[in-house]
Amino acid sequence: KSVSVTNSKQTGSHPNLILTQESVAEIKSQLGNVPVFDATLAATQKDVDLAIQEGIDVPVPKDMAGGYTHSQHTANYKNMQKAGVLFQLLEDEKYAIYVRDMLLEYAKLYPTLGRHPQERSYARGKFFWQCLNDSNWLTYTSQAYDCIYDWLPKEQSDYLNKNLFRPYADFLSIETPKYFNRIHNHSTWGNVSVGMIGLVMDDEELVNRALYGLKDLDIDTNAIDNDGGYIYDKDGKAGFLANLDSPFSPDGFYTEGPYYQRYAMYPFMIFAEALQNKKPELKIFEYKDAVLLKAVDALINLTDADGEFFPLNDGQKGMSYYTASLVSVVDISYYHGNKKPELLSVAKAQNAVQLNASGLAVAIGLRDGKEKPFLKKSIELSDGANGDEGAVGILRYNDSNNTMALVMKYTGQGLSHGHYDKLSFSLYENGEEVLQDYGLSRFVNVEQKNGGGYLKENKTFAKQTIAHNTVTQNETSHFNNDFEIGSNNHSEKYLFDASNPEVQIMSATETNAYPGTNFHRTMLLVKDATVDIPYVIDLFKVTSEKPNQYDLPYYYFGQIIATSFKTEAPKSLTPLGTKNGYHHLWKETQSQAKADNIQFTWLNNRKFYSITAATTNEDAIILARIGANDPEFNLRRDPSIILRKKNTKATVFASIIESHGDYNPISEKANNAYSSFKSIKVLLDNKKYTALELQLKSGVSKVLILANNNASKEAKHTLKINDKNYEWSGSYYFK
Amino acid sequence: KSVSVTNSKQTGSHPNLILTQESVAEIKSQLGNVPVFDATLAATQKDVDLAIQEGIDVPVPKDMAGGYTHSQHTANYKNMQKAGVLFQLLEDEKYAIYVRDMLLEYAKLYPTLGRHPQERSYARGKFFWQCLNDSNWLTYTSQAYDCIYDWLPKEQSDYLNKNLFRPYADFLSIETPKYFNRIHNHSTWGNVSVGMIGLVMDDEELVNRALYGLKDLDIDTNAIDNDGGYIYDKDGKAGFLANLDSPFSPDGFYTEGPYYQRYAMYPFMIFAEALQNKKPELKIFEYKDAVLLKAVDALINLTDADGEFFPLNDGQKGMSYYTASLVSVVDISYYHGNKKPELLSVAKAQNAVQLNASGLAVAIGLRDGKEKPFLKKSIELSDGANGDEGAVGILRYNDSNNTMALVMKYTGQGLSHGHYDKLSFSLYENGEEVLQDYGLSRFVNVEQKNGGGYLKENKTFAKQTIAHNTVTQNETSHFNNDFEIGSNNHSEKYLFDASNPEVQIMSATETNAYPGTNFHRTMLLVKDATVDIPYVIDLFKVTSEKPNQYDLPYYYFGQIIATSFKTEAPKSLTPLGTKNGYHHLWKETQSQAKADNIQFTWLNNRKFYSITAATTNEDAIILARIGANDPEFNLRRDPSIILRKKNTKATVFASIIESHGDYNPISEKANNAYSSFKSIKVLLDNKKYTALELQLKSGVSKVLILANNNASKEAKHTLKINDKNYEWSGSYYFK
Ligand SMILES: [Ca+2]
Ligand SMILES: [Ca+2]
Ligand SMILES: [Ca+2]
Ligand SMILES: [Mg+2]
Ligand SMILES: [Mg+2]
Ligand SMILES: [Mg+2]
Ligand SMILES: [Mg+2]
Repeated sequence: KSVSVTNSKQTGSHPNLILTQESVAEIKSQLGNVPVFDATLAATQKDVDLAIQEGIDVPVPKDMAGGYTHSQHTANYKNMQKAGVLFQLLEDEKYAIYVRDMLLEYAKLYPTLGRHPQERSYARGKFFWQCLNDSNWLTYTSQAYDCIYDWLPKEQSDYLNKNLFRPYADFLSIETPKYFNRIHNHSTWGNVSVGMIGLVMDDEELVNRALYGLKDLDIDTNAIDNDGGYIYDKDGKAGFLANLDSPFSPDGFYTEGPYYQRYAMYPFMIFAEALQNKKPELKIFEYKDAVLLKAVDALINLTDADGEFFPLNDGQKGMSYYTASLVSVVDISYYHGNKKPELLSVAKAQNAVQLNASGLAVAIGLRDGKEKPFLKKSIELSDGANGDEGAVGILRYNDSNNTMALVMKYTGQGLSHGHYDKLSFSLYENGEEVLQDYGLSRFVNVEQKNGGGYLKENKTFAKQTIAHNTVTQNETSHFNNDFEIGSNNHSEKYLFDASNPEVQIMSATETNAYPGTNFHRTMLLVKDATVDIPYVIDLFKVTSEKPNQYDLPYYYFGQIIATSFKTEAPKSLTPLGTKNGYHHLWKETQSQAKADNIQFTWLNNRKFYSITAATTNEDAIILARIGANDPEFNLRRDPSIILRKKNTKATVFASIIESHGDYNPISEKANNAYSSFKSIKVLLDNKKYTALELQLKSGVSKVLILANNNASKEAKHTLKINDKNYEWSGSYYFK
Repeated sequence: KSVSVTNSKQTGSHPNLILTQESVAEIKSQLGNVPVFDATLAATQKDVDLAIQEGIDVPVPKDMAGGYTHSQHTANYKNMQKAGVLFQLLEDEKYAIYVRDMLLEYAKLYPTLGRHPQERSYARGKFFWQCLNDSNWLTYTSQAYDCIYDWLPKEQSDYLNKNLFRPYADFLSIETPKYFNRIHNHSTWGNVSVGMIGLVMDDEELVNRALYGLKDLDIDTNAIDNDGGYIYDKDGKAGFLANLDSPFSPDGFYTEGPYYQRYAMYPFMIFAEALQNKKPELKIFEYKDAVLLKAVDALINLTDADGEFFPLNDGQKGMSYYTASLVSVVDISYYHGNKKPELLSVAKAQNAVQLNASGLAVAIGLRDGKEKPFLKKSIELSDGANGDEGAVGILRYNDSNNTMALVMKYTGQGLSHGHYDKLSFSLYENGEEVLQDYGLSRFVNVEQKNGGGYLKENKTFAKQTIAHNTVTQNETSHFNNDFEIGSNNHSEKYLFDASNPEVQIMSATETNAYPGTNFHRTMLLVKDATVDIPYVIDLFKVTSEKPNQYDLPYYYFGQIIATSFKTEAPKSLTPLGTKNGYHHLWKETQSQAKADNIQFTWLNNRKFYSITAATTNEDAIILARIGANDPEFNLRRDPSIILRKKNTKATVFASIIESHGDYNPISEKANNAYSSFKSIKVLLDNKKYTALELQLKSGVSKVLILANNNASKEAKHTLKINDKNYEWSGSYYFK
């Protein structure tokens, strides 16, 4: 049943979704004159011609991700989308015929299917094991269908609408409300797929359902999905606009983290572009102070020097803005967002464009040499719908030889893909991980590994606090791994100041992860005359009402070169603990610091790194390696150094992290194989101030004083430490 | 004391060593017209100008390798050598002054020195902890001295000859005979350094000493050096020519292995070039059927696709033909060896030339576009002075997408740097290790790691048999780690046939590693229509008089994707054994095959690999990881899969090793994540024949039959297996 659309463009003039009749005419007039567009078109034609040659294959659904039927249905929707575009731009009917014939196969298959035979998902699909992939299918296929809609005889489009698309849209929404009605990237895909086909069919009921969600549902509001997330928002909000309101902060940070933001941005942007074409009165790109455009900018800022996303929360390493869906995202953002020339440099790196008006604009911009470098600078991206639920802080230093990026996470929980990693951080040099966030435990689309789905070690290790470069108290993860408590809390920003490129600082607090214990972590990225490469100062202040054990790991890579503490080889290896991720760590050695400082130097990727840390004599140093209790070898055997303080109420972990030298196996030269630092010492630590002294081997020494309760830039402080007077204004002193 | 040279060019016309008066004139006339030469010259000038600006620093020797005095003396000789060349080519006296002033400093320092204070070496030097480095100093410095010899007032050169060079040459030879008189790369450096300075000073006594060694010595012929090698050749041969005779095979393979061949080639070639200039009547480049030129060719063939040397025996990974000393070696080989255009492509990759006539010839060749690709083809390089002590076999397959290199070692012991690794192999794909040889355990020039010297784990692990992809019997290394027995034996080549690029085969036997046990390993590299990427068939036949335990490890990298056998996670990790390297392996899990086949799939560098191996029900599969009993974390935590057969007399290890697919973390697509093979089976194994059957999942099956005692290409065979008749001629059947 088709409802006429009010306040919108006229119907009956397809294409009008991503391509429009006007833009098709404009593109055709430019073909041959826009190199990146022309090249993308040629590559697309090559792909589709090959697919047409191979013939249509619409198998009965059977496999998990990575398996044959899954991969075939995925290839089908991608090929149909491309074929639709080719039909419009090249006017060759073979592409329309290919789409039509495949759609008729699907229309034949669809009514014969129950839910997918694989029972792993909380929302099993039709062609795929989960509705999520079915929504991908429908989002792409809608575009193909729009391209041939007017070419099809009306009885054929009526047939497809009635027998395939409308039932499928109802299946993905009304029949699967727990999937469709959440605040979650899954539901975004669900909403968009229903909205896209609604726009094609001019089915306003579907479009409204997509925008505003299902109403008056009777479902169990406490049910959780197979990722461990709630399937119902506590405020009962649902639909595309609600999914824009809530997981996005005003800075465009998406609370699930960059890996899922990357995944969600395509449906957000492609549907926004379709809405802009068909319902411009919605002004979707201006919605929430242009949050969609800000989100694209935020997402690019959440990458390392190679364009790879920081693997905050569940994130698979290696995913980058080179992924095909981000080509569309960047192009749409450029076209609908004032044509920022910085986006052209990302598009240039991608070396492909979306084959519509947005991509044409990008290709023209590139052809005309309009791009400017996208300089990733230090930035703080707030979390929470209103931007007041913590943030991600990124401090960067770039010069011609070196780029450093220090990423600290003081956000909210991040929905079901969140990790228990309050105040954790990771460090990158030239796009390589120096101190890592483990990321997720999953091999996406590798069928042998649990059908490509999450591995159980994602929950038992990757999400746990001890898997992160932050403090675990009493071998228990933050919020005691309780998703509900975690979701009701967030860290608080204390200070972020990157105005002085030589001394950049960020600082945040966490008071809820462990009741009765307060964390306050401050990180500086310092590049001054004493060093060639910026170093990190890490000041992690802990106060508690009662004595606890605190563990702070640093997950490094590579081989140990020197330790200031004595290491012994155990006769056998035992796990570091029995639960909360500790049971996945082998204790390779445990030492006592027996000094007020330890130093640890390692070699990775032909570079030397050191951590110098203040200790007490009694502190333990544990060298651990991931891999215990992992019968299927799902975890990487990565190492870490863990600083342990036992039976302690208040303390400060204070460390210097340096990249200081390199090794060349061809010249066999070791440059600066030693740390530049002699020691780091806690000069003072009380409620109001914490002060550190850093001694360089050169004889120079530096003092850092942090005002613990006053982040004001104007505040004046005077303080006497060891008979020396310090006076400064602002939240910290560093000299 | 200076002796006039007979049958040689006239004296008194320096330079006449590496540069000559004629070549200097020729070079000057070409400057500005030979891009690579000009660029190298400019870079050299920049280096030396900076060094001159920093001033002369000749510290009192104190440190081990990697330490300050060691690095400074190393920089000094390199800078002097360059400055000497610059003086000749640019005619700027400041370069001569720099060399002179530094030499005068050394002449002042030298008489004050005893042996170096560090007592680690069997042959402690003067400026360095070991004579080896002092010989480097003298070899380079001789070149500098030659360049300023005629410019110096005679009383100054007389002074330097008398107070520095002649005493130093005597120190490195007469006073350190155990160093000078060996068959070893150390002695080559010793010989060359004495010979080079002898040529400069026209001191024929030194030149003869260099060429023929010290005579009539009274030293302990059973003494060993700190690397564990003999310091005296059993036949009493010594000197440069003896070091050309004996460690080099007629194919130019250097028995210590490519890493030390790379190290030795510079002194061999630079002295040869000097001899060619000053004593052309020696015809040194034609010596032993032009073995020096063959050696350069062999050395280039002993690299992976990136030009990195295979780490056979003691070899540090990452060393490649881009190393500075190989620039000279390649240039000298080009100039004195018929200007083979293939060498120009190596020189082009090096992008630098030696600043003399050889380098000029290369630069001209490159400028004139004369280079041809150096195609590394399948090759067998014999070992032993007469080429009859086994060999290294390399099977390669190159196409536009992929290069595979399979390296099998069936050589002699390889002097003191040899490993107990008979019939071991390693596998490379596109220049990356698939199945590794561990290489050495050492961080060359990293002072923190034992002063940059060999670590004790080199002996306790890296040299041991279990560290290699070959069979260990009863947890004891080949020859029971006895260097003398190892040195008296070698493996025997059985078969090497790379004539059919689709089915290449190599095969060798080892009958001495374990008395009473015979090994016969055959490896094939097969690229046929059934696969995209060549696969390896590994047939390791063992026969013994009594039952033993046999372990065959494969040292892979990366993460396990699937195992056909069940793996369990132990509560704690224990070492695999108590000695012979076994004590350095953690047993991560041990399984019983319980099948007549196992399959093991892993992911590394975004590629999928599988090993499919024939087993018996009782075979054990051990997943191990290096790192036990390693208190200083000297060893890499690399994994291996070990096939274990217990209480067995005769058996066959039969495996297929495949690279079959890839994973793209950006598209999240897994291509061909599964092995193409269903099984491998031993059809027949007796004294005369061993037959394997390989079943592909496609339904195709293949049979390999090897004639175990007849490698003749002409022999005719007929054989009935399971009622099927096989008839073929040649040593093997594969269809
Ligand atoms: Ca990266
Ligand atoms: Ca080796
Ligand atoms: Ca390589
Ligand atoms: Mg994490
Ligand atoms: Mg999740
Ligand atoms: Mg080895
Ligand atoms: Mg040695």
